[in-house]
Amino acid sequence: MSEADVRVDAEKLYLLGVRALTHVGVPDEHARMTADVLIASDLRGIESHGFARFADFYVYRARDGHLNLNPQVRILRDTASAATVDGDGGLGFVAGTVAMRLAIEKAQSSGVGMVSVRNSTHYGPASPYALMALSHGMCGISLTTGGNGVVPPGGARRVYGLNAISFAAPMRPPEAPFCLDMAASVVAAGKLEIALRRGKPIPAGWVKDGDGEDVTEPDVYYESEGMGGILPLGSETLTGAWKGFGLAIMVDILTGVLSGGHSSAELPRRAANHFFAAMKIDAFTSVESFYDQMESMKETLRAAPRLPGAGELTFAGEPEAAFEADCRANGIPYHPSVIESLRRMCGELGITYDL
Amino acid sequence: MSEADVRVDAEKLYLLGVRALTHVGVPDEHARMTADVLIASDLRGIESHGFARFADFYVYRARDGHLNLNPQVRILRDTASAATVDGDGGLGFVAGTVAMRLAIEKAQSSGVGMVSVRNSTHYGPASPYALMALSHGMCGISLTTGGNGVVPPGGARRVYGLNAISFAAPMRPPEAPFCLDMAASVVAAGKLEIALRRGKPIPAGWVKDGDGEDVTEPDVYYESEGMGGILPLGSETLTGAWKGFGLAIMVDILTGVLSGGHSSAELPRRAANHFFAAMKIDAFTSVESFYDQMESMKETLRAAPRLPGAGELTFAGEPEAAFEADCRANGIPYHPSVIESLRRMCGELGITYDL
Repeated sequence: MSEADVRVDAEKLYLLGVRALTHVGVPDEHARMTADVLIASDLRGIESHGFARFADFYVYRARDGHLNLNPQVRILRDTASAATVDGDGGLGFVAGTVAMRLAIEKAQSSGVGMVSVRNSTHYGPASPYALMALSHGMCGISLTTGGNGVVPPGGARRVYGLNAISFAAPMRPPEAPFCLDMAASVVAAGKLEIALRRGKPIPAGWVKDGDGEDVTEPDVYYESEGMGGILPLGSETLTGAWKGFGLAIMVDILTGVLSGGHSSAELPRRAANHFFAAMKIDAFTSVESFYDQMESMKETLRAAPRLPGAGELTFAGEPEAAFEADCRANGIPYHPSVIESLRRMCGELGITYDL
Repeated sequence: MSEADVRVDAEKLYLLGVRALTHVGVPDEHARMTADVLIASDLRGIESHGFARFADFYVYRARDGHLNLNPQVRILRDTASAATVDGDGGLGFVAGTVAMRLAIEKAQSSGVGMVSVRNSTHYGPASPYALMALSHGMCGISLTTGGNGVVPPGGARRVYGLNAISFAAPMRPPEAPFCLDMAASVVAAGKLEIALRRGKPIPAGWVKDGDGEDVTEPDVYYESEGMGGILPLGSETLTGAWKGFGLAIMVDILTGVLSGGHSSAELPRRAANHFFAAMKIDAFTSVESFYDQMESMKETLRAAPRLPGAGELTFAGEPEAAFEADCRANGIPYHPSVIESLRRMCGELGITYDL
């Protein structure tokens, strides 16, 4: 956060979110699912996926008829531990929440649950869904297609998605859970937006242009009409770009192909597919043993020699958990322009603004 | 392969492998599981994981009492779609094959199967297990811990495993299946061995020394007494090293923590843990739709503009499938020193050599 940021109470913002969505016609339960994920995103500091784009991305689009406001989320196939869900072109938060709950339910009875989702839209960040499994004594997985910003190895045009992978596993409370949330590209598009906003260059190894040359000015990415794009995780072939590309295709298979939908390279703009899995820990080992081994692994890795000035080893999910604890105590920090967009939105809709 | 390589018939080599293993006391069924995976490895060109180290790595160690020759592979926990298996310190090929078969069996009846394995040893490459799922109309996942050659971000010492991830999904026959098989590090250790053997430098971004400096001479990696090591996939923090580190920890959680074992950073030398999953395609969508969408995704990505001289886009598993087809027709190519090691081994054991 920066000094100009304004702290907002999470509960108040949640209620404002629900109010705005129901006002434009989103059913109450769906509005709650949506606001839940957006708040979870902001509480973890995934600023690009939360209320910063609430008005433009969701509320106005819903009001202007660009979304199926009352989707009939349907289960297409259903076995003891697997299912396919159709999101009916509604808010991805709804299909995502319904599908992850279904995966958890299946894991509850059979040990593991997997649900593949087609015909959905943007569901926010991947991690809030993976984290839903933890309070049930489970590990969680959440995968999604993303905007088509990535060039495959040797490619001249961005064609496939910033496909995301989240894996969450509990630590013994109150320790922060392990929570990986990553695009299978070198960086997520949000990092380019931040550089653009701040007028800063980006490092070599993130983006290539349509001739395969390194790009260091973020505006080149936005003004190149789809030529060039973000590189797969690994950047170059010699340093493993085929691995990032392969992981993204794995995500496309589990989300789009397995659900009977389409891959990220073929999806219409704003459409998305997802995949969820839940694994009940005590179907494999005792929860106490799991906690012990998580702790032991972390301690061993933390105790290993560090480079001078490197600081303590950080595990995925730790910075986010610290940020969340601060936000719950002191409010979530937002850039004043985000607060202004919410105030203006309330004015336009004629609903109470009380942040 | 190089010009000096000798072509060997896969079936003859398989039988020689079984003969040698049973001669040193490995039960016939276990010897077959082992030779199966080693042949599958060599047929896919994963030279570092096949018969090249058969004599030293498996046969002599078995003969000299460093392995539990007749492990009682036990199922510790068992639900409709999940199980934990103890490998009893035997050959990893045995625990791996038993566990993957169990995952497939569970997927057959409930849609999905997941099996976590502790107390095992090296199981060869990850992909042969993932590929076992395909003939059952399933996708497969195979994860394993590896040798502890990787430095975490900011670390000065190699402490955790070259943890591997394999995901396999079928295409409509005779098209090669999608088959990702990757270490969560920039490169697998095999790449360093090859550079060392050929006296070639390695590219920056693969290995750092104990001071965090780039290493380009592979012998530095082997002579630094555990200081420095291979970098996580992503190489540097700015280009996503935390993602490679996070993926490796995910593998450690699913293999070691979930099985009630230990993480790669804590395992004794040569010990290993694994994790397997099988997903029955028609529990999610029709197999025909799956094939259609796989094909459509590939065509769309292949049709996208390429950089000059880049050649056609290659998918994970394609080069390996082409190599296998050649090997099945013309024999598997081996360096003469590998053939010599097998001939010598047969002499030492007093068994027939007939390659």
